[in-house]
Amino acid sequence: MKKKILMSLVAIPLVLSAGGLKQKALDAGLKPIPADEAALMKLIDNPKNPVTEEKVELGKKLYFDPRLSKSELISCNTCHNLAIGGVDGVSAATGHKWTANPHHLNSPTVYNAVFNSRQFWDGRSPDLEDQAQGPMQAAPEMAITKEMAVERIASMPAYVEEFKKVYPDGKITFKRIADAIGAFERTLVTPSRFDDYLNGQEDALTPAEKEGLKTFIDKGCASCHNGVGLGGTMKPFPVVKPFKYANVGDFKGDKNGMVKTPLLRNVTETAPYFHNGTVWSLAEAVKIMGETQLGTTLSDKEVNSIVTFLKALDGRKPKIEYPMLPPVTDKTPKPVMN
Amino acid sequence: MKKKILMSLVAIPLVLSAGGLKQKALDAGLKPIPADEAALMKLIDNPKNPVTEEKVELGKKLYFDPRLSKSELISCNTCHNLAIGGVDGVSAATGHKWTANPHHLNSPTVYNAVFNSRQFWDGRSPDLEDQAQGPMQAAPEMAITKEMAVERIASMPAYVEEFKKVYPDGKITFKRIADAIGAFERTLVTPSRFDDYLNGQEDALTPAEKEGLKTFIDKGCASCHNGVGLGGTMKPFPVVKPFKYANVGDFKGDKNGMVKTPLLRNVTETAPYFHNGTVWSLAEAVKIMGETQLGTTLSDKEVNSIVTFLKALDGRKPKIEYPMLPPVTDKTPKPVMN
Repeated sequence: MKKKILMSLVAIPLVLSAGGLKQKALDAGLKPIPADEAALMKLIDNPKNPVTEEKVELGKKLYFDPRLSKSELISCNTCHNLAIGGVDGVSAATGHKWTANPHHLNSPTVYNAVFNSRQFWDGRSPDLEDQAQGPMQAAPEMAITKEMAVERIASMPAYVEEFKKVYPDGKITFKRIADAIGAFERTLVTPSRFDDYLNGQEDALTPAEKEGLKTFIDKGCASCHNGVGLGGTMKPFPVVKPFKYANVGDFKGDKNGMVKTPLLRNVTETAPYFHNGTVWSLAEAVKIMGETQLGTTLSDKEVNSIVTFLKALDGRKPKIEYPMLPPVTDKTPKPVMN
Repeated sequence: MKKKILMSLVAIPLVLSAGGLKQKALDAGLKPIPADEAALMKLIDNPKNPVTEEKVELGKKLYFDPRLSKSELISCNTCHNLAIGGVDGVSAATGHKWTANPHHLNSPTVYNAVFNSRQFWDGRSPDLEDQAQGPMQAAPEMAITKEMAVERIASMPAYVEEFKKVYPDGKITFKRIADAIGAFERTLVTPSRFDDYLNGQEDALTPAEKEGLKTFIDKGCASCHNGVGLGGTMKPFPVVKPFKYANVGDFKGDKNGMVKTPLLRNVTETAPYFHNGTVWSLAEAVKIMGETQLGTTLSDKEVNSIVTFLKALDGRKPKIEYPMLPPVTDKTPKPVMN
């Protein structure tokens, strides 16, 4: 009983300052996924590769298609599995011939990846369409050549028909394969209760989550984890203290030592954390961030409060009908296992 | 014009004898997937593991869940991919640590596998529930122990809740994991135009397909490829002549040299063919069957006619919403890559 009273006492000032907290979040650079569909479409679209229904449908098929890997066993969805938070849940991405990423890099989530300002941990790719070309060709990932990818897809009449629907000239190119995948990925956004809150639904967050949001901002987390994705821009890492697991893999960021800030949406589903997938506990990851980036030792209470807020970023996933893919034909280049 | 007349001339006797052909098919042991839902449910159900909606939903999640493999990268769906005919499209099944099946055995389709009288190429398993236990534990496949599988699933609260819904005592066991997967697999049936025909829709097959069906029966194919699955029972292989690619792998059938007859439903999607996945062309596979099993050299016309019929076995796939799986927790045993 006493606890309950205490809880309501604690809740009062938060309720009173609620409008203030929302403004504080916006001032800190946090932005919602728009509730308005037209605004959302504008936000996720790429004028150079417009998101159309037909292209998204084609892209979905290609995203799930293992024939886009040399072995025909690995699809985009293998490492960015939409069933488990858009990741693979392993420390270092592992692909063709069971090869781990040579830099011990962890697969980032594809959900909301459209909100990244750059793609890849070193930000070397400007957008999802460009990014999609990388893993398909990378030897430790899908290991296919541009030519074989095109030859495989062009050998299946149903794909030929779909390409005609999307591109009047019907030409199948590697760039267009990646473009369609990118268009599909742009639709993988997951609005959460945090967005409902920022979009005006005052009671979408619990008092404890609001407290967590306040802590998140006050401690400085939002200085990197901001924008619609709560992350996604290139930042220095580490800032104050060395990252304690930096010795796993040899990744040092881009040429200026900048690292892409991971998105925090659905972060409860994207363990293990950090570029090298070395930390499995979200609480530990938050604690480490406090030390390496903010130069502060977060108390257990503060860590828990931040984690409570982060859980409110678990989003509503789009419904995905598992695609039925065109069968291979006698002309389809065969899988190559080695 | 002449061709058209010829075609109608050819078509007439078939139309006239249509009732006769259907009866001929039934007499040859070919059976339709029942159009009546209650009859179908009765056919696919397992009294020892009743197919219920909740169990199928749980089984679907488990079927797609890579956390049921040691590495957390491989699910049932990896080798029996529902997007590509319920198979993996590679010659020998390849799993944990990129290990090929030691006997060079090919992954059979999971679609309609409920119609197999026995499971596995050597028929060592009586039903889908029993079968599902095998690949999870097999070192070159998912490579997990019963204990780790149970520990992984039991560590995720959403799974605990789902087990409670299916089993009043809520107990999570390896057998129940396999049972739920089996229940899901029982629903993966794909009625085709051939079934529509046998169920009374006279025009569901084209004249050419009916001609192919007739050839299929007359040549003796239906002596093994019969029943609802058009296959699925243990038969001698080879019968008349040695199988020309028998030297790939060391599989010799069960202790009596019997081999499970593959199902022919969706056969256009399940290349490469034979237990060792050595033949990529359906026409070639038909020709080889004629030689090794029936002791006859099928003409190209006969082969084409049979293939035309086989294409009519392409079924209507159930719609599958890609499942969103419970996230791992701090208690979930970590993936082990080696």
